[in-house]
Amino acid sequence: MTRVLRTRVELSQALAAVERPVGLVPTMGWLHEGHRSLLRRARGADATTVVTIFVNPRQFNQASDYTRYPRDEGRDLAICAEEGADLIWAPSVDEVYVPGFDTTVSVGAVAEPLEGAARPGHFEGVATVVAILFGLVRAEHAYFGQKDAQQVMVIRRMALDLALPTEVVACPTVREPDGLALSSRNVHLAPPERAAAPILHAALLAGRAAWERGERSAKALRSEMQRVLATEPMARPDYVSCADAETLRELDRVDGPCLLSLAVWLGATRLIDNELLP
Amino acid sequence: MTRVLRTRVELSQALAAVERPVGLVPTMGWLHEGHRSLLRRARGADATTVVTIFVNPRQFNQASDYTRYPRDEGRDLAICAEEGADLIWAPSVDEVYVPGFDTTVSVGAVAEPLEGAARPGHFEGVATVVAILFGLVRAEHAYFGQKDAQQVMVIRRMALDLALPTEVVACPTVREPDGLALSSRNVHLAPPERAAAPILHAALLAGRAAWERGERSAKALRSEMQRVLATEPMARPDYVSCADAETLRELDRVDGPCLLSLAVWLGATRLIDNELLP
Repeated sequence: MTRVLRTRVELSQALAAVERPVGLVPTMGWLHEGHRSLLRRARGADATTVVTIFVNPRQFNQASDYTRYPRDEGRDLAICAEEGADLIWAPSVDEVYVPGFDTTVSVGAVAEPLEGAARPGHFEGVATVVAILFGLVRAEHAYFGQKDAQQVMVIRRMALDLALPTEVVACPTVREPDGLALSSRNVHLAPPERAAAPILHAALLAGRAAWERGERSAKALRSEMQRVLATEPMARPDYVSCADAETLRELDRVDGPCLLSLAVWLGATRLIDNELLP
Repeated sequence: MTRVLRTRVELSQALAAVERPVGLVPTMGWLHEGHRSLLRRARGADATTVVTIFVNPRQFNQASDYTRYPRDEGRDLAICAEEGADLIWAPSVDEVYVPGFDTTVSVGAVAEPLEGAARPGHFEGVATVVAILFGLVRAEHAYFGQKDAQQVMVIRRMALDLALPTEVVACPTVREPDGLALSSRNVHLAPPERAAAPILHAALLAGRAAWERGERSAKALRSEMQRVLATEPMARPDYVSCADAETLRELDRVDGPCLLSLAVWLGATRLIDNELLP
């Protein structure tokens, strides 16, 4: 039986009575197969599954991106029920950010490049809201998609540093049959943009293939990804990165674990994707 | 029986077995009657009392102030035992700030004036370490001295905003018979400075007296405090404030709760004190 809660107080009261361990799936709604996979993972590992649905204004660096973000609560609640979630917390902005709210959680080096550089303030918004959610739910586990690889790293750093009680679990990216990583933003793609969108994954796979052939120059791997992206005239790359998988510093040579990642505009929609080597 | 713990793991294991509620008294050591009053308050309200002793490098904006801060762990442990503390956590810097630590908690408006303006970075250091301590101990209550009035406000804001499970309890300032507020820094005062130090409390009491006579001009209240401080040639005021007790914004007229506060140098030692009106 799925219960929908709106306030901090309702959430606390409901959590006081549930079986442990608790698995948390924080979302911004507009749920897709990727979220479903997180929910299934939580249900497999935890006695109680909590989903939060909250489009967090503080992590959007552009107001238009926030207002444009897709929302359909009725559909989201139905998906949570289908997947057997126990509790759904779908609060208003004022329940998350209490009156007079004035605290910011920020993570340093790992939040600076890539999405952090492209979207100033984004990771402060993410770290702050996730700190609040972890504080409220006090779950044993929280599940995030590896599609947002840097986000996972920022949240893991924050939770460890602040001694929050929640272990961060990264789950594999779920893809469409043609390779496009699932994202709530995909709904914004016009048909020709949607047709072009698998180029992100194709570029990452070309980077991986070059690495598997023995290429260890990070510059060569970036060039290979850029070469593939350039075959799609609609794709406007924002960044193409080959970075240390722990620090996210750009590499010269790939001698250890490495994150290939990219951000690409298709029309007015910005998509990201990544591939972890090996 | 007082137990001394050094690591995060030892602390967690010990806490798993204690009776609730837990009362936390976070300290930087060099314990005095003020700390004893916090410990007694915790013992009166909570089943288990936890003291932390940690001179937090991140809240000192000057390295010399950090190295100069007085330390005497043996004496501190004896005082905790005398007062019947159950657990003492006295960690190394690396146990508080885990390897790769890179997270900052900052509070906005209420952390900006007064001590925040005089000591850049101080309250980020305070908010961050207290978030960690609250995360680790998960106490029902944490006790702080009202002598550091702005610190109490910053921590209360942070704990509420981040949904930390700990209620912040402010306890009355403990004073020497001549009115000097107890502070670990008092040990640095040379005898003539110690003799001059009660001037802080005298200035605050003069401000209060003026208010009790009906003075409602904040400027007049500040002038009255400055007038008293000027009678002590050794006292070099850093700031003299008459601010809104909720926002800490400087007032024109005193129409509601108000915090009189001041910071004064005596030689190389900087002392603070405050008085809440009414």
